[in-house]
Amino acid sequence: MRVAVLFSGGKDSTYALYWALKQGFDVKYLVSMHSESEESYMYHVPNIHLTELQARAIGIPLVKGFTKGEKEKEVEDLKNVLEGLKIDGVVAGALASTYQRERVEKVAKELGLEVFAPFWQADPEEYMREIIKAGFDVVVVGVSAYGLNEQWLGRKIDERAIQELKALNKKYKVHIAGEGGEFETFVRDAPFFRARIVFDEVEKIWDPYTSSGVLLIKAAHLEPKSDDYEDSGC
Amino acid sequence: MRVAVLFSGGKDSTYALYWALKQGFDVKYLVSMHSESEESYMYHVPNIHLTELQARAIGIPLVKGFTKGEKEKEVEDLKNVLEGLKIDGVVAGALASTYQRERVEKVAKELGLEVFAPFWQADPEEYMREIIKAGFDVVVVGVSAYGLNEQWLGRKIDERAIQELKALNKKYKVHIAGEGGEFETFVRDAPFFRARIVFDEVEKIWDPYTSSGVLLIKAAHLEPKSDDYEDSGC
Repeated sequence: MRVAVLFSGGKDSTYALYWALKQGFDVKYLVSMHSESEESYMYHVPNIHLTELQARAIGIPLVKGFTKGEKEKEVEDLKNVLEGLKIDGVVAGALASTYQRERVEKVAKELGLEVFAPFWQADPEEYMREIIKAGFDVVVVGVSAYGLNEQWLGRKIDERAIQELKALNKKYKVHIAGEGGEFETFVRDAPFFRARIVFDEVEKIWDPYTSSGVLLIKAAHLEPKSDDYEDSGC
Repeated sequence: MRVAVLFSGGKDSTYALYWALKQGFDVKYLVSMHSESEESYMYHVPNIHLTELQARAIGIPLVKGFTKGEKEKEVEDLKNVLEGLKIDGVVAGALASTYQRERVEKVAKELGLEVFAPFWQADPEEYMREIIKAGFDVVVVGVSAYGLNEQWLGRKIDERAIQELKALNKKYKVHIAGEGGEFETFVRDAPFFRARIVFDEVEKIWDPYTSSGVLLIKAAHLEPKSDDYEDSGC
């Protein structure tokens, strides 16, 4: 099974990639769609290259597609990116977003591809714990929810963080896995990474009025994990 | 003819892309190989995302492959990146590098792909003039040759620059098109770009002892060229 994994570098897509590799799928490409509407380019420059750093750490080529971010166009743009790839299926990390899932399924159907969304409707708490137990180093790089403060930016997801998210879920309905956009994550390391990502310079940008912010990663580098890293290509 | 264009963002690969589009080729992907050996990642962060900004301006998906930069592995890594693409050929901007050409041809042969290197052994002076006349906005972003000073960093290639390069060629054997690695270029705009790239913050790094330097592009943004830009996806 030759697949492309829809990849954003956050916990969901990275964990879906891990799943695909464990299935023995031949993951040919990581596919990352960038929306122009969601950003001022300059603002995102510090973080935008990090997907690439991850792809390099993982050792799988990265395909970057661009979209204007209009809902109808997005489907077409994703299709355009996928249709030139020799693959049998696509893997998506979506947990609960029906819009995202339907979008991917529409494209896949048109291209005759299978869709794998292995964690669709997984229990958020169990799912988060599973990721940690698998040895993923996940940090929060974006926050946008009442109840989550500046202290969450740059925080590593561990058992204590999950417990706090559970409490915040009870109090403020914050989704434990951040599926409602409450927080964005970045995976610095996972068992299949050939090298881990080290942040050298970060800056917190916080807007107290909207209770939202981002962690800008201004400089980062790869740190090899073993001698194997030196020998393996991509 | 479905093709991938080997793309670095400099004048040669961008002009080869222009040629491919004029031929009516269906350019499915821009393919960019990143070597790990040639860099400290941090050092290159400011410029590394710019290929992506160009791909976005052009509106063609970008495939990024990674290689350790060992000569034998490079061929294999490029092959790995290309073999999953539904293409009939690859387009390369190589003017005179036999090593680069042979590497591409070996991979293409193994994958049954045609190779197009339209400017192979073109006359450097005529070639440079042709690029300018076609409306390309080319700037020098790297310099590494005796005879080329710091003033060349950030300089736009125009007729006067070509005349000076001609003089430097006579005096110091500087290749007029920089094929010997004398200078590196970046294309900010070309007739087929949907948007032009504007540099917002640059920094010159110059080493007088080796007479070499780079122009770090620390911030840049896209400026739409017409209303068409707003309507077109990717």
